[in-house]
Amino acid sequence: MKFFASDNSSGIHPQFLAAIADANTGHAQSYGMDPWTGRFDEIVRDLFGASTEAFLVFNGTAANVLGLSPLLKSFEGVICADSSHLAVDECGAPERWLGSKLFVSPARDGKLTAGIVKKHLVRLGDQHHSQPRVLSITQPTELGTVYTLEELRDLSDFARRNRLFFHMDGARLANAVSFLDCSFAATTLEAGVDVLSLGGTKNGMLGAEAVLFFKPQLASGFKFIRKQGMQLASKHRFAAAQFTRYLENGLWRKIATHVHQLAKRLEAGLAEFPEIETVAPVESNAVFARVPKALINPLRERFFFYVWDEFDWTVRFMVTWDHTAEDIDAFLCAIREELGNIKA
Amino acid sequence: MKFFASDNSSGIHPQFLAAIADANTGHAQSYGMDPWTGRFDEIVRDLFGASTEAFLVFNGTAANVLGLSPLLKSFEGVICADSSHLAVDECGAPERWLGSKLFVSPARDGKLTAGIVKKHLVRLGDQHHSQPRVLSITQPTELGTVYTLEELRDLSDFARRNRLFFHMDGARLANAVSFLDCSFAATTLEAGVDVLSLGGTKNGMLGAEAVLFFKPQLASGFKFIRKQGMQLASKHRFAAAQFTRYLENGLWRKIATHVHQLAKRLEAGLAEFPEIETVAPVESNAVFARVPKALINPLRERFFFYVWDEFDWTVRFMVTWDHTAEDIDAFLCAIREELGNIKA
Amino acid sequence: MKFFASDNSSGIHPQFLAAIADANTGHAQSYGMDPWTGRFDEIVRDLFGASTEAFLVFNGTAANVLGLSPLLKSFEGVICADSSHLAVDECGAPERWLGSKLFVSPARDGKLTAGIVKKHLVRLGDQHHSQPRVLSITQPTELGTVYTLEELRDLSDFARRNRLFFHMDGARLANAVSFLDCSFAATTLEAGVDVLSLGGTKNGMLGAEAVLFFKPQLASGFKFIRKQGMQLASKHRFAAAQFTRYLENGLWRKIATHVHQLAKRLEAGLAEFPEIETVAPVESNAVFARVPKALINPLRERFFFYVWDEFDWTVRFMVTWDHTAEDIDAFLCAIREELGNIKA
Amino acid sequence: MKFFASDNSSGIHPQFLAAIADANTGHAQSYGMDPWTGRFDEIVRDLFGASTEAFLVFNGTAANVLGLSPLLKSFEGVICADSSHLAVDECGAPERWLGSKLFVSPARDGKLTAGIVKKHLVRLGDQHHSQPRVLSITQPTELGTVYTLEELRDLSDFARRNRLFFHMDGARLANAVSFLDCSFAATTLEAGVDVLSLGGTKNGMLGAEAVLFFKPQLASGFKFIRKQGMQLASKHRFAAAQFTRYLENGLWRKIATHVHQLAKRLEAGLAEFPEIETVAPVESNAVFARVPKALINPLRERFFFYVWDEFDWTVRFMVTWDHTAEDIDAFLCAIREELGNIKA
Repeated sequence: MKFFASDNSSGIHPQFLAAIADANTGHAQSYGMDPWTGRFDEIVRDLFGASTEAFLVFNGTAANVLGLSPLLKSFEGVICADSSHLAVDECGAPERWLGSKLFVSPARDGKLTAGIVKKHLVRLGDQHHSQPRVLSITQPTELGTVYTLEELRDLSDFARRNRLFFHMDGARLANAVSFLDCSFAATTLEAGVDVLSLGGTKNGMLGAEAVLFFKPQLASGFKFIRKQGMQLASKHRFAAAQFTRYLENGLWRKIATHVHQLAKRLEAGLAEFPEIETVAPVESNAVFARVPKALINPLRERFFFYVWDEFDWTVRFMVTWDHTAEDIDAFLCAIREELGNIKA
Repeated sequence: MKFFASDNSSGIHPQFLAAIADANTGHAQSYGMDPWTGRFDEIVRDLFGASTEAFLVFNGTAANVLGLSPLLKSFEGVICADSSHLAVDECGAPERWLGSKLFVSPARDGKLTAGIVKKHLVRLGDQHHSQPRVLSITQPTELGTVYTLEELRDLSDFARRNRLFFHMDGARLANAVSFLDCSFAATTLEAGVDVLSLGGTKNGMLGAEAVLFFKPQLASGFKFIRKQGMQLASKHRFAAAQFTRYLENGLWRKIATHVHQLAKRLEAGLAEFPEIETVAPVESNAVFARVPKALINPLRERFFFYVWDEFDWTVRFMVTWDHTAEDIDAFLCAIREELGNIKA
Repeated sequence: MKFFASDNSSGIHPQFLAAIADANTGHAQSYGMDPWTGRFDEIVRDLFGASTEAFLVFNGTAANVLGLSPLLKSFEGVICADSSHLAVDECGAPERWLGSKLFVSPARDGKLTAGIVKKHLVRLGDQHHSQPRVLSITQPTELGTVYTLEELRDLSDFARRNRLFFHMDGARLANAVSFLDCSFAATTLEAGVDVLSLGGTKNGMLGAEAVLFFKPQLASGFKFIRKQGMQLASKHRFAAAQFTRYLENGLWRKIATHVHQLAKRLEAGLAEFPEIETVAPVESNAVFARVPKALINPLRERFFFYVWDEFDWTVRFMVTWDHTAEDIDAFLCAIREELGNIKA
Repeated sequence: MKFFASDNSSGIHPQFLAAIADANTGHAQSYGMDPWTGRFDEIVRDLFGASTEAFLVFNGTAANVLGLSPLLKSFEGVICADSSHLAVDECGAPERWLGSKLFVSPARDGKLTAGIVKKHLVRLGDQHHSQPRVLSITQPTELGTVYTLEELRDLSDFARRNRLFFHMDGARLANAVSFLDCSFAATTLEAGVDVLSLGGTKNGMLGAEAVLFFKPQLASGFKFIRKQGMQLASKHRFAAAQFTRYLENGLWRKIATHVHQLAKRLEAGLAEFPEIETVAPVESNAVFARVPKALINPLRERFFFYVWDEFDWTVRFMVTWDHTAEDIDAFLCAIREELGNIKA
C-alpha cells in the first residue's frame, strides 16, 4: 500500500541513491571542502545566478530558521502566513533560535498579499514593539497553490519599499518552477527573493536541503551560523552529490511534472464525486478536499493520509515521486467504494 | 591517496549503504513512526538496557547539545575537558542552545578525574554563580585514550554524590567498548552514565548519531526538543536502518577492532623513528605524535592529516574503517622517505 | 499640565519616596539579604497566602517574562490575548528569553474565555507543534476591564483540566482587587493563579515589580533565573521598602480607589458629549473612547495621551495617582472647548 | 556597624536621593522621552565625547551583557579575565543572552595584556570554532587595580589590529579616572574603547547604570535591545537625574577620591600587622589581603566582609562612600584586637 500522506512517505529516488553510491569513493575532506560540493556550488550558480551562495543543511526546519538568521536581529520579526510551516509546523524553532516574533497572517489559499502584509507595518520605530523585518512566503504554498511571477513581483516590490527582506520557503520549489514553466532564477533571484530554502528531501533525496543567499553579504558568516546551528554535515559530499544530480540534467523538472500530472489526475477523478469538494487550485503535488467525515477512517486504513482541518474535515492528499497513474486510479477506486459503503 | 585526517575522510561503509538500499522500499510513515525505527529501538534496549530511550539526530554536535538539554537549566553549567568537542569544536553551539556556561578543565590525555572536577564545585547555591550540574566526558577521549571501567565508576560515583548528571560523548564509543572488551551497557548504563551521545558517522555511517537516555524521565519531552532543535529527520528510517545494521551482528566490534589494530600498527611503525614521539596511549583509532616541523608540509601533501597543536607540532593521525594494513605501511614508508629528505 | 497618557507619566508617590528615605540608613547586605526584604516577604504571605514566594524585579516586562520561565520549556507556548502586553508591548522579550511561541487570541474587552482558549488546544502531543502550557491573562486587562471572580474560576478550572498553568499579569492588580472589593488572595491564589506579576511602578513606586509564586516548587531555582535574567538589584532594600509601605496599611486600596473614582468621573463627563463613545466598561483607571479624529491633535497638545487604535480613532485616557478631581474637570473642559472648535 | 563587604552595602548617597526628589515633580513622558534624560545625554557628551550615545539600564549585569550585544554575533566570543564579573559573577547571563562563548584568561592583578589575549586568537576563520570578537576589560579591575593609559592604549591597539572590539566594564570607572588624574574621555574614547558600562550604583546611586557607545553605528537599534532585554525603565527620569547630579559638578571625583583615600588609610594600617599581606596594589576602593584563617570569623562578626579565595584565605575589604576615617580606624582597631585574641 502506498500512502497519500506526505512527500516523505516515499523513500529515496533511485537516481539519488545512485548519486550517493557514486560519491562513495575514496577519501575526501569533510565539512564541505570536497569536489562534490564544488560541483554543487557551480550548478547552483548556473541555475540561480552567479552571485548565489549555497549552503547545505539537513532538513527544512533548519533551512528556514538558519536561513532567516542573517536577515534578522532578535527584536525584529517575520511576517508569514498562518498556514506556513514556519508558523505551525516547526515546534517553535523560529522563536527558539531566532528569538524573533512571527507576525502571523490569515492567507487565502496560503498566499500573502501586500494588502495583508501591510497591516503588520505598524509602530515602526516604537521600541516597545517587535519590528517587522522579513516577509516570508512559501512557494508553492502549503496549500499547493503557486504564486504567479506577477504576485511575486508585487510582494517583493512591496517588501523592498518597506525595508523588508524577502524570504522564500521552497521546500517544493521545483514544482512551482515547473508549473510556471519558468527558470529557477525567474521565481527567485529575478523575483526579488533574498534568501531561499531549496528543498531536496520532499523531492526524493535522503535528507538534504539548501539555503541560498542571492546577495553575498547576507551569506558572510553563515558558515558559522550553520555550524553553531548544529547543521554542518561531516560527510558533506553525499548531500552535494544528490543535489547536483537533481539539478544538472533536468531531473528536478521530470519529478515535478510527474507529481503534478498525477495530482491533476487525482483532482479530475475526485471531481466525479459530488460528496467531495476540492478547496484550493491544484498547482503542485497536493490536493486539498473537503470530504464526508465518515469517509476518513475507512479510507485511511487503506491509504494513509492526513486530516488538514478537523473542524471542516478538509483532508490533504499528497502525491510523491514514486506514485504511478495506477496508484492514483486505485486510490480513486477505493474512494468510490468507501463512499458507496457510507451510503449503504 | 587516503587521508589520515579524520574518521570522516572516508565515505559510507558498504554495509551501511546496503542497509540504506534495503530500507528503500515502499512507503512508510515519516519522522520515526516506521518499522525500521521500531527495530532500532529494540536493539538499543537489548544492548544498553531495557529502559533506554533512543533518539536519532543528524550529527554529533546535535547529539551532544540536545542530549544535554533535559539535564540542565540555563543557569546551570557543564564541567568538561579543555580538549572536549563540546568546549572547542562546536562553534559555541552549547552556549547558544543551552544558554549554559561550560566549566572547562585541563585534562591530561583528555581524561577528567574527580580531583579535577572538584575544583569547579564552588559557590554552590550562590545566585551570582552558574551552578555546575553536569559532568561530561568523552569516551574514548579526543586524544584517543579510553577511560577504564574503574575510572568511569569513580567519576560517576563522584557525580552522583555531588548531584551532577553524568554525560558521555561517545562519538566513537564502540572503539572504547572493543578496547575494554566489555559490553555497551558496561561502559554506559552500568558505569552510571545518564545520557549518551552514540556515534554512527565516525564509524562509517552516512549522517546518523543517537542520543540515549538511561532514565526514561530524562527523555520525556525530548521529541519536542529534537524537533525544535531542528534535528528531526523526515525519512527517519534510513538512519535507523544503518544503526540497526551496525548494532545487530557485531559489525560495530569488527570495525572497532579493525581501526584499533591498524592504529597500533601505525604506532609500532612510528616507534622506529627517533624523531617522532607518540604523546598519548593508543587505545582507539587515533595516534597523536610530536613530529619535526619540517616533516609536516611534505607529508601532508602525500597523506592529508591535521596538526593538533601548532605550538609543539603535535599531529593527529586518524585511522578509519577503509584503511588497510597496506595503507598504514605506505604511510610509514612515506614518513621514512620524508624524514630522510629532511636530513639530506 | 498633567498627562492622561500613562500611569507612568506621574512620578513617585510621596509615601514611596518616604519609604526609600526611611530605608536609607546604615549598611545592609545587598541582593535581598536585608531586613526590609524580610518584612516584604512577610506581608506578602499575610496578604497572598503563607506559601507564597515573592521576588522583586525592576520592571513589568521582566516580571512577566521571568515569571513565566519556571512554567515553560521552550517547546511549550503561552496562550494570551491580542491586547496583552506580553503579545504586543514587550518588543518580543517573551520569544527572546523563553524561546516560546505565543498563541495570540482575539479577546473582547481584553478578556479571554475558555471558549477562546480552547481553540489553541490542538495537536497536543504532536512533536511538530509548540505545545500550549500556560494561560496568561491580565487583571485588570489592558482595556481597563476586570475579570469577575467567577470568570477567573472558570478560566482556572479550564486551565487545570487541560494541564495549563495559570499566569496573571497584575501590573495594576490593586485596581482590580479594589473594584471587586475582595482580597488579594481572592483574585489570585484562591482563583487558581499559579504565578502573578504584581505591579508597583504603575501604582506610584519607583521601579519595583514583584513575581509571586503560589506553589513553592515553581519558585525553586528562580533566584538564579532572576540573576541570569539581569534583574537582581544590589540595593534590594529600596524596592522592598516601597512594596511594604504599599501593602501594609491599605495604601494600595487608597490609591486604587482614588484612580477608579476619577476614571468614573471622567467617564461620566464624557457621556455628555454625543461625539464621544466609551468603548469598554470603566472598571479600573483607564477610559477607552472613540473620538472624532479632529479632536486628537489639539487635545493632545493640551493634555498628552495615546491613540490606541489608529484605524477607528480609539484613544486611551489613563488616570494616575496624582490626578485630582480638578484635573479631570479641566480635561473635560478642554474637551468641550476643542469639540466646540471643531464644530465652529 | 558598617560593613567592608561591598560598595552596595551602603545606601543612597544624599545627593542622589535629593536628585530623585528634585525630579519628582509633575508629569513627564516615560521611557526616556523626558527632559532629565535630555540633560543626561548632554552631560555625557560633554565628558565622554560628542558622538557618545548613552542608554540607562537597571544594573551592571545588564550594562555589560546588553552593551556587548551589538558587538557580537552568537558565534563570536569575548576574551575576558578569569576574575571578571562577566566570567564569574553573572550566573551565566552572557552565555544565556548573547549565546556567545567567553574565552577566559588568567590575569595577574585582574589585568589582561596583549600577550595573554593573543593566545585566544587561534583557529580564526575555522567554522568549528567560536571566533574571538571582543576584548573586555574591567577598569578598575575586580582586584582594585587600575590600567594605566599606556596599558589601555596597548590593549586597544592590539584589539584594533586584530579586529576585536574593545569593551570596558566601568562599574567603578570614576575611581580609575580619579586615580589616573585624567578625564573620563582619556580613559575611554581616547583610549580606544568602543563600549563602556558606566557604573552608578556602586558609586552611591539607587539602581542606575549606563551603557555608552562611542561609535554611533554601534548604538543603532540598541533601544530595541534594551527593551527586549527587559531593561527599559518607565520612570526613566530618576536614573537620569541621579547620573546628571553625579557627573555635572565633579561629585563623581569627590566620591572617588574619598573612597580611595580611605582605602589607602586602611592599607597603611594593615601594613603594621605582620600577619597580614596585601596582595594587589591599592589603586581604587578595594584592599585585598591574605589574612590568618583564624581572623576571619571573629572579624566578620564585627565588620561584615567577603572571603575572596577560600584556598589561600585572601579577603576583600571594600570602602564605600559613607565610610569615614573613624570607620577605618575602628576596623583596624578591631583587627588588632582579634589578632591579639588569636595569639593569646
